[in-house]
Amino acid sequence: METLKVSTKSSPNSVAGAIAGAMRQAGAVEIQVVGAGALNQAIKAVAIARGYVAASGLDLVCIPTFADIEIDGERRTAIRLSVEDRTHRRAQPLPHVDLETLRIN
Amino acid sequence: METLKVSTKSSPNSVAGAIAGAMRQAGAVEIQVVGAGALNQAIKAVAIARGYVAASGLDLVCIPTFADIEIDGERRTAIRLSVEDRTHRRAQPLPHVDLETLRIN
Repeated sequence: METLKVSTKSSPNSVAGAIAGAMRQAGAVEIQVVGAGALNQAIKAVAIARGYVAASGLDLVCIPTFADIEIDGERRTAIRLSVEDRTHRRAQPLPHVDLETLRIN
Repeated sequence: METLKVSTKSSPNSVAGAIAGAMRQAGAVEIQVVGAGALNQAIKAVAIARGYVAASGLDLVCIPTFADIEIDGERRTAIRLSVEDRTHRRAQPLPHVDLETLRIN
């Protein structure tokens, strides 16, 4: 599964686009953040991405867990958000719509 | 459905206990936060609460949405986290365990 690393400077709209793309390709995506500012951008992105994928029949949910990671030799506690369809569905391609076109939007 | 208002000063462990209690009583709970610090405490609380309710057969997920709210006459954008069981299950009381006891833990 793809892991998106989101920071305080990440644009929620761009991250939302990446989430939607990963959901269509792999059915799930993981977001890793360190710190409140980064988490804020990530959660906003999930809220936006819910709208992006709803038309494909997906009901995005997120599952937060703690993760111990090492950054520059220092131990930090990260938060991982597993972003999945509620019932593990894969996106249904819309009739008469090219997948490539969907990915651009 | 109960709405928990979480702030920067909220203890994630206490909020996790409140989430677990609400999940057992109502099957779902909503958390409302304004700002990155408050969201951070709320998401940590959900991560902790997942462990609390797993023994009852619940798979906690959270669904973030935006909400326009008014605080002291000013418009703010809040984030609402709908905390639910993935498949809308209700907690199964453990055999030989009194519900009142469960609620205290």
